[in-house]
Amino acid sequence: MKRRKFIKTAGIASAGSALAATGLATPAIAKDRVEIAMVATWPRDFPGLGTGAQRMAKRIADMSDGRIQIEYFAAGERVGAFDSFDEVASGNAQAYHAADYYWKGKHPGWAYFTSVPFGLTYTEMNAWIRFGGGQQLWDELAGSFGIKAVMAGSTGVQMGGWFNKEINSADDLKGLKMRIPGLGGDVMAKLGASPVSLPGGQIYENLVSGAIDATEWVGPWNDGFMKFYEAAKYYYFPGMHEPGSMLSFGMNASFWSKLSKNDQTILESAASMENDVMMSEYNAKNGAALASLIKDQGVQLREFNDEIYDSFGTAANEVFEEVRAHSPLANKIHESFIKSRSEVGAWANIADVAYLRQRNRVLGL
Amino acid sequence: MKRRKFIKTAGIASAGSALAATGLATPAIAKDRVEIAMVATWPRDFPGLGTGAQRMAKRIADMSDGRIQIEYFAAGERVGAFDSFDEVASGNAQAYHAADYYWKGKHPGWAYFTSVPFGLTYTEMNAWIRFGGGQQLWDELAGSFGIKAVMAGSTGVQMGGWFNKEINSADDLKGLKMRIPGLGGDVMAKLGASPVSLPGGQIYENLVSGAIDATEWVGPWNDGFMKFYEAAKYYYFPGMHEPGSMLSFGMNASFWSKLSKNDQTILESAASMENDVMMSEYNAKNGAALASLIKDQGVQLREFNDEIYDSFGTAANEVFEEVRAHSPLANKIHESFIKSRSEVGAWANIADVAYLRQRNRVLGL
Repeated sequence: MKRRKFIKTAGIASAGSALAATGLATPAIAKDRVEIAMVATWPRDFPGLGTGAQRMAKRIADMSDGRIQIEYFAAGERVGAFDSFDEVASGNAQAYHAADYYWKGKHPGWAYFTSVPFGLTYTEMNAWIRFGGGQQLWDELAGSFGIKAVMAGSTGVQMGGWFNKEINSADDLKGLKMRIPGLGGDVMAKLGASPVSLPGGQIYENLVSGAIDATEWVGPWNDGFMKFYEAAKYYYFPGMHEPGSMLSFGMNASFWSKLSKNDQTILESAASMENDVMMSEYNAKNGAALASLIKDQGVQLREFNDEIYDSFGTAANEVFEEVRAHSPLANKIHESFIKSRSEVGAWANIADVAYLRQRNRVLGL
Repeated sequence: MKRRKFIKTAGIASAGSALAATGLATPAIAKDRVEIAMVATWPRDFPGLGTGAQRMAKRIADMSDGRIQIEYFAAGERVGAFDSFDEVASGNAQAYHAADYYWKGKHPGWAYFTSVPFGLTYTEMNAWIRFGGGQQLWDELAGSFGIKAVMAGSTGVQMGGWFNKEINSADDLKGLKMRIPGLGGDVMAKLGASPVSLPGGQIYENLVSGAIDATEWVGPWNDGFMKFYEAAKYYYFPGMHEPGSMLSFGMNASFWSKLSKNDQTILESAASMENDVMMSEYNAKNGAALASLIKDQGVQLREFNDEIYDSFGTAANEVFEEVRAHSPLANKIHESFIKSRSEVGAWANIADVAYLRQRNRVLGL
């Protein structure tokens, strides 16, 4: 684990002003260089999550003509995956790329800004964050920890996970040791499983060794890369726990507040574009990856039945009551989220759901 | 209709180089100003479509600290809505914000870069354009007309339209004069209707006067603003004709090719962010708007039945055969689009469709 020092340049006096003092015309204001150390919770070059964060960093350099430079540290290269938060909140690094539900031990409200059980799909999440009051609540929560975070990627609807036996009712979950973070893990605990939160780089070894019996991770493209099928053959859908996992570009709030409007807009826009690009890549690659897992690796695809989904629903309600009781802010985040889910979810029934049902019926997809 | 002259600055010598010649250190390279006249196919300040294009222009100025300036002309302010293409292809203006299916008379391939019957939803479209070969085909088609276009907004799944009677079978469409552009209009023609293409600003007057019997436009938020319910009470869903209408930021190809990588990245990123922001706004506002139309305006919400969807499917296949016969490029675009639809659509069944069915069932949404 190497540590490197970064010169904080956001606050230095403008070189452009000094130039202007020479009396020469300055055809454009010379801007400060900005250097950002970004710590990520993903293994280096990990498809989608890691490559997406790295692509975002490159885009920021291109958008600023190299003036804003991000040095990217994958999990473990500077700090461990789950130490990213403290590294940025303390100001040791300027930014992280992560899933904010990893911080739910600090406050359960963080879970809503990645994904929660029975939560929002990608497009619904974007609607809540941008137009349903989500960003304001995220700012309130993150600000209390010295962080400013924006949307920076999504995996879309995740698979339910890998199991070494069939799961036909909630009874089949009892006693299972499963890697599943966030509030989804709490739902599993209500049903008698033992959830653990592990960063991506540590799942395979724990599954193969038998330290855990089951795991969820992302979806076919990512999961196939991880070779979970070597230890668990039953692959369930749809996941109730992360229906639109949003990733975040979290910055030290003091660093952010000193940036110019220009630089803030560049960072926010690059993260926003990555939000869309990463989602597109998952949607483009998951289908073929799933077909290959079934054909080439003998993976058994299974759908969670209505009975178990009803059990998930009951358990999720208990978890949400605990979250709401945590604090007024947790309750406020929950209420806002649920309001958007009702409004945007009802519209989805008229729009995407109704359309896809007819299209896929007529085409036989 | 006023015309204004714009100084084309993209190609001028860098003022920064001149400064460097003085021997003084140049802490940052002074950049060329870029001025863009953007003609749009939308009425000024039209919610979503117009305000989104205007928001994108502002963001480009913010991202470049005012160096790239876009002067925005709504439909009719510089040229008529449907003259935007020629204005940009000729180089009179640098860019348009439009729906590319308006140009299908020039080549049917353009329709695929807005939306086609039984086509892709928002997230599916993004997957095709970004990772399924869509952008490359768009570049090939647009390049042959002197245009470079990128994604810059979406309305999502559109409603089926406003009718002054119930539509229970394809027979009920016979003889209807309906405003419906793109290949969706061609499908309606196969079923005996008379489609017309009108820009948004001219629909209401034609519907109220009886010059047309029916119209589609976008969805509840936009359609309510247009007051179509004053002339047609039956509001049908889901639209087969535009399941994820993508809007485009089309630039003069010669102008684009002379821009720096830096400026190209800024323009592309701003358009990409607007793609997501506009979609989010439609999803956030359509639900409440639909509820208000039903409650306050007596609008009758109706769902197209399976029988008529089967008729739409048969007619769409005939239309697609004609498109494919048009030219090798049209056929190539169609084949690529259909391949993505199969792959990404099958994944949608496992992901979004399966999840939303369970979630909305358990929650009673």
